[in-house]
This record gives sequence, structure tokens and C-alpha cells, in this order.
Amino acid sequence: MRRFLPSPLTVVFALLAAACGAAPGAVLVLQTDFGTKDGAVAAMKGVAVGIEPRLVIHDLSHENTPYDIWEAAYRLKQTVPYWPAGTVFVSVVDPGVGSARKSVVLRTASGHLLVGPDNGTWTLVAEDLGVEEVREIDADRHLRGGSAKSYTFHGRDLYVLVGAKLAAGQLALKEVGPPLTAGVVRLPYERARRADGVLLGGIPALDVRYGNIWTNIDEELWAELSPTPGDLFRVTIQRGDTTVYEGEMPYVRTFADVPAGRPLLYLNSLLHVAFALNMDSFAARHGIESGAEWRVCVERMR
Amino acid sequence: MRRFLPSPLTVVFALLAAACGAAPGAVLVLQTDFGTKDGAVAAMKGVAVGIEPRLVIHDLSHENTPYDIWEAAYRLKQTVPYWPAGTVFVSVVDPGVGSARKSVVLRTASGHLLVGPDNGTWTLVAEDLGVEEVREIDADRHLRGGSAKSYTFHGRDLYVLVGAKLAAGQLALKEVGPPLTAGVVRLPYERARRADGVLLGGIPALDVRYGNIWTNIDEELWAELSPTPGDLFRVTIQRGDTTVYEGEMPYVRTFADVPAGRPLLYLNSLLHVAFALNMDSFAARHGIESGAEWRVCVERMR
Amino acid sequence: MRRFLPSPLTVVFALLAAACGAAPGAVLVLQTDFGTKDGAVAAMKGVAVGIEPRLVIHDLSHENTPYDIWEAAYRLKQTVPYWPAGTVFVSVVDPGVGSARKSVVLRTASGHLLVGPDNGTWTLVAEDLGVEEVREIDADRHLRGGSAKSYTFHGRDLYVLVGAKLAAGQLALKEVGPPLTAGVVRLPYERARRADGVLLGGIPALDVRYGNIWTNIDEELWAELSPTPGDLFRVTIQRGDTTVYEGEMPYVRTFADVPAGRPLLYLNSLLHVAFALNMDSFAARHGIESGAEWRVCVERMR
Repeated sequence: MRRFLPSPLTVVFALLAAACGAAPGAVLVLQTDFGTKDGAVAAMKGVAVGIEPRLVIHDLSHENTPYDIWEAAYRLKQTVPYWPAGTVFVSVVDPGVGSARKSVVLRTASGHLLVGPDNGTWTLVAEDLGVEEVREIDADRHLRGGSAKSYTFHGRDLYVLVGAKLAAGQLALKEVGPPLTAGVVRLPYERARRADGVLLGGIPALDVRYGNIWTNIDEELWAELSPTPGDLFRVTIQRGDTTVYEGEMPYVRTFADVPAGRPLLYLNSLLHVAFALNMDSFAARHGIESGAEWRVCVERMR
Repeated sequence: MRRFLPSPLTVVFALLAAACGAAPGAVLVLQTDFGTKDGAVAAMKGVAVGIEPRLVIHDLSHENTPYDIWEAAYRLKQTVPYWPAGTVFVSVVDPGVGSARKSVVLRTASGHLLVGPDNGTWTLVAEDLGVEEVREIDADRHLRGGSAKSYTFHGRDLYVLVGAKLAAGQLALKEVGPPLTAGVVRLPYERARRADGVLLGGIPALDVRYGNIWTNIDEELWAELSPTPGDLFRVTIQRGDTTVYEGEMPYVRTFADVPAGRPLLYLNSLLHVAFALNMDSFAARHGIESGAEWRVCVERMR
Repeated sequence: MRRFLPSPLTVVFALLAAACGAAPGAVLVLQTDFGTKDGAVAAMKGVAVGIEPRLVIHDLSHENTPYDIWEAAYRLKQTVPYWPAGTVFVSVVDPGVGSARKSVVLRTASGHLLVGPDNGTWTLVAEDLGVEEVREIDADRHLRGGSAKSYTFHGRDLYVLVGAKLAAGQLALKEVGPPLTAGVVRLPYERARRADGVLLGGIPALDVRYGNIWTNIDEELWAELSPTPGDLFRVTIQRGDTTVYEGEMPYVRTFADVPAGRPLLYLNSLLHVAFALNMDSFAARHGIESGAEWRVCVERMR
């Protein structure tokens, strides 16, 4: 008879689950272009908390430039690798809300889960971290009850709901919907490269807070110029065919290696080539922005 | 003798409480007009964490327009229903701080708890969710020790303290203070209505991030015009007696149904009539704001 | 034999640790000048979550004026005392990143832990809360694996890692690195004082959201003028030797004691003398800022 009763250990585990919350430790991270002035993000968090009150929820950012999918993709590339495997990201920068774009969950080879519209947001993480599996979200099955009449807020009624259930262990990836064997939508962009001993690349993003210019030239490509701290380089920045900036600057390890206000070349926290003015904004001072039409050229001084 | 000893199960529960934190799962949500640049919100959170370190704390927003009680009321209406029953909201948008306004805890019929000054902030949630109980906070009893000499920061020294104790299960509603049988202060505002086949209403809020215009005309009133996606409507927006905008636009299900830059009428995430420009800001383009003096009129095109 | 087996209680404790997370309840609080638009703060949080997924993480602010160490010091003074002993603060406002400035952990006499660059950020908390112990962080030992080539992001690769381990109980203070017996760097600043029956002081910060002027004249110094609510005072505000504002205002307990738009003197939430316009911005209206070159003079009207 006794073996039909739960063992003492089973009882202890059940009590633990009840007392500590069922969340198995996965974390939910939110990224949107909604800002935090109105209630959109708070409504999303309320829905997530309704799934599991003790779910750990963090923000990537809600200050994404409205409708700027490229920026969202870049911020994911910049941050996802620093989170532990299993972390669930819900990203809603969605100019095509209500259009034919699909809703998906992407599982990277690194074990991160990404939930949101399939509009190119996943371009860079898919490339960097690898794609293990993509599922199209079955909206008929997963849309929040009571939201059927609203056509405008998938962030709250679908994406965060699916994301919270995945993080809380209440939904398995295969229950999300059918596999998307074609993979996810990828945005075209200009790659960094070397030509005639010169490095060419783009400006995928600014370090907006300080006005530093971040290129997509990574440390391996950079190493092809055999740079040593203190070496001088000529930097040209163009928008389309117009040269917006041209100047010389040293490659330094720290901003403090040049006087205040002077330009410098450094490797940023992503280990990409970046330009800055010590204690000033390079972007503001020289009118530089980011995006597909911006190009940079870096050349060793003779 | 043995029955005077705690049972093994009791011991396990006590250990669980010690290890997992005493918080019974209720969540604390904060709303202020303090911004997050200075330390006011962080001090409030410190006080809450001092009550219970593992208390789950989220932000509704701290970017409320300073002193704008109406906006605070509208953001609560927009978000509270998405949080689970038992969630405790502390809202401090308090132009009358230090004046004779009362401090209250309101329990809605939906089981949400709202803590803060009784200055009209509860107008819309009281109307939408129903009032089950209102208690006036006994400040003599609940004011934070050491704060007696400060007259200016009830958010930190009273409201968040009471809210955190309620959420952590350390304070029962009836211990807050005496019942307020008169209920809470309600702000006057213009209601949506139908007259002569035309819909009239107000602009309680903008969708500030995108510049969309949100009216208080809900889907039921809207249905009285028997709208079908694709139908054209004439929209007039007035400030007092001055017409600020007049134009025609289709009722659509998704922004992508009109070309970029074109106006559209849609049901927003609250299922209220709203106006937008696809990929542009209606508010900025036409100089529209929100508030009691703004009125809209929606009429089916002949 | 039996005494070599774990006791049932030991087993229960081990299960508790596994189920509830090892974090012993200490909380991590982050302060930076990175803003939340890009991914810098999110990357830091990802690193912390990787240490312990259920670690409780809060934000002091990420909107610190870039490179403004004084402001960071002031915000810490304003908030740290409201958090429970044991709370770990990671503060990264670091214009000298990469220079010779040390990296430290400071334990205050109040039991708070502060992690970051030793550049003056600790000036005011060290003064207010007392210094119990200072350790220099041994970067060779604690720098995040894989970050050796990057010279620019100690916030993510060193400070938050050390802070999260301290909060999660995975690192003891003495394991951080060697003691710094010289203590921490202190910034010079102008102290409040009384001279010839007049109070003199500085403007360490503005209440940025409302535009109120916060001085460093505390309630004890203020009491030397024997003020009673309703009394009138003459206030002079100078930048260097230039008088920027001069006017009379009453000492009040609440903003509502004067008409909208009128000036008033009050004790702010830190119990310091402050100046405001009821329902308006004193700073914007009169062009007042904060910092070392600003001085105030408060004098009782005859």
C-alpha cells in the first residue's frame, strides 16, 4: 500500500513549488518602441505577472526609435549574448502590426528564445548566435481571451503572453505552433570588409548617450591593419557619396589617452572599431548618424 | 506530550517561509510624476525593499506629466485591469501634497488595491472596476519613523510603506485606518455620447509615443454607426469652440491598410475610437493635445 | 554510521537552496550615466542574472548627467540610506574609464556595499554613513572571462559581476582584493554655514523634474534662524560673483500655502532648505542650475 502514497520527498517538492513559485528560473526580457510614459509596457507586464507573479522580468529598452527595426536588431545583437541560455526575449518593434507579417518564436543555437513579429528584428542574433528552431505562433490558440476584437496590440495580447508562459515553464516551444522551415526574415545591410589595405564598413548604431560612432568593423578585421596603441589613422565618414567627416586620430586603449575634445579610435564594448571625442559628442559635433546609407573608411597614416 | 511539538510539516513550512521570503505573491506597482533622473523613486523602492527584500516591484510609469492627475487616472484605467487581483498600486501624482487632501487605500470590486492621495486619481478605475472599500490612511500610525519633520514626501514615507506592507501581507486593509464611507474624489470630465446620428466625445489621452489621438468613444457606442472596415468617416476636432482639424478617413483594422502619411480611424488597444497617420504623428502634424477642453465629432460620410 | 549521512533537515535545506535560489536576500541596485536607450544597462543586467537568475535587481537611475560624478555622489547620498543594510550598489559614472583610477568596493558603517570606480563618487555617502572598509578590486582575478581584449566596459565586465556575486553571497568582501587603507577619493565642495546671521550654502542638485532648487543647508543650520511657517526670507542666488536671482518668499510647510506661480521656501525630503514656485519651475523661470560655482544666501526679513 505504501508505495501508492507520495513519498516524503515528493511532498517536500510540492510544498517547495507552492511556496517558491513554479517558475523554473527562466527570465523574461522586454524590448519595445513604446516608451514608458503611457501604459502600454505596464499592461504587458501585468499580463506576464498574471501568468506567474514571481516571474523575473527585466527591460532591454523601451526607448527604441519608433518603427526602427534595424535598431532593435542591433540592440538584441548587443545584449542577448550576455544573458544566460534559456532567457526569453519579447521584442515588439512592429511597424507592420496587423499586416501579413508572421509572429514567431526563434530558438537560437545558444539556447536563447526570441518572441515577436518576424519582420527582420532577428537578423543579427540569427547570424551571430545561430538558428536552432523557428515556430510560427498560432494566434488562434494563444491570443489572450477577451482581446479578439482588438487588432492593434499583439505585444500585450499575444507576444508577452507566449513569452511569459515559455519563461514560466507553462508552455513548451513545440506547443507554440508549427515549425517555420524557411527560417526568419533577414534585413539586408552593408558588411565590413578590407579593400586595397583600407577598411570599409557601416555605422549600425551610435552610442547615443555619449555620441560615439560605432562601426561594424570587428577586432579581427581591425587586426589586419596590425594596429598598435598610439598609431595614427585617417578616418572618412560618408553619407551616400557625400563626405561628412575626414580627419586623423590615434588608436587608444582609453579615452584619457587624448586631451578633452580630441578625436580617438578605440574598440568598443562589442570589440568593434569606434570613434569618439574625449569628453564630447562626436556625433553631435560632426553631424553623424547611423543607418544603411552611412559608410566609414579607416586607413593607416603613411 | 508529542502534540505540543510542531509537526514535521509545520517545521517544513517555517523553513520554506524563511528561505523563500514571506511575501505571499502580491506584487507592488508604482506610478509617479517624479521621473527617474533623481533619487525619489529609488528612495521609495528602498523603503519597499526594507519591508520585504523579495517583494516583486514593477513600474507603471514615472513619466506622468507633472501634477497631471487626469493623466494618472487615465493610465491607471488603461493598465490596472491587466494585472492580477491582489496587485497593489501606489500612485503619487500629488499637486496638493501637504494640503488637506486625504490619503487613502481603495479596494476595487476586482480586488485591486490602490494607495495614494485622494485627489481624483481614482476617478476612472473606480468607475470601471467598482469600489468595494475605501480606507483613510492613519498617517499618525503609519508614517515612517524618522520622517516626522519632513512635510513633503508622502510617496516615500507613507504611501510606499503602506503599499509594500499590504503587498507583503504584513498589513491588513482594515488596519490601514477608518473606512471612508463617502468614497473617493471624482474628477468631472466630458462623456462620450451620440446625438443626431453623430458621435461626440473627448480626448482623454494621446498615444504619446506615436502621436495617435485616443478618444473616449468605446466600441459599443462606435457600433451604433454600424461601421465596416473600409467605410469613410468625417472627423472634426475642436479645442473649445475652435476647429483644429477637419478631415475624412477610413475605418481600418490595421495601419498598413492606408499609405504612409495618410489618416485612419481605428479601435485602439482599449477598444476606443482613435485617429492616426500611418507612420507619422497625427498629434504633431495637426497640433492636437489631450484634456478636458478638447472635443471630437465623428460622422459617417454620406 | 548514521552520523556520516546528511540529516533530514540538511536535505530539506539543500532542496530549499535548489528550489528558491541561493541568493540570501541581498539586493543589487544599479546607477549609471548610460541611459536606457541602448543596450549597455541590459548587458549589465544579463551578466548579473547569469550569476543568479533570481537576484533582485533595482535601478537607482541611469539618467545621471554623463560624466557628472558630483551628481552621482549626490544621488547616492539621497537614496542609499533608505535601502536596507547589505544592499549592494554598483555605480558607474566613470569619465576616467581606462585611466589609472582604482576600482573599489566600499563597505559603509551602515552596512551598505558600494562597487565602482574610485573617482569621488563615494564622497557624500562616505561622509554621511561612515567608512568601515575599502577593498581595491583585483581586476586580474575578477574580470569577466572573454572580456580581456576590451578596455572600455568595466561596468559590464567587472563592476556588475563583482556586485552580483557579493549580493548573491558568492563572493566575500575580503575576496574582492587587498584593503585600501588610504580610503576613497573625496571631491572638494562648498559647505553650508552661518555668517553674520545669514545662511550661506551651495546648490548640490536641482529637483530636476519640478525645477525646484535644493541647497545643502540642513534643518539644524536652518533652525538657527528660528523660522516659523509664514515667516518671510530674502533669498539671493549667485553664480560666481553674478547675482542671478534675488527675491522674498515665505517659509511654508506645503506648496499649496502660496498661490500658483509664487515663490516659497520649504524643507525638502532630505530636510534641506529648498526654493520652489508653486506649480511652476523655479530653475527654468530664473535660469538656475546646480554645481560647485552656485551659491545661495538666505536672510530673515527685518
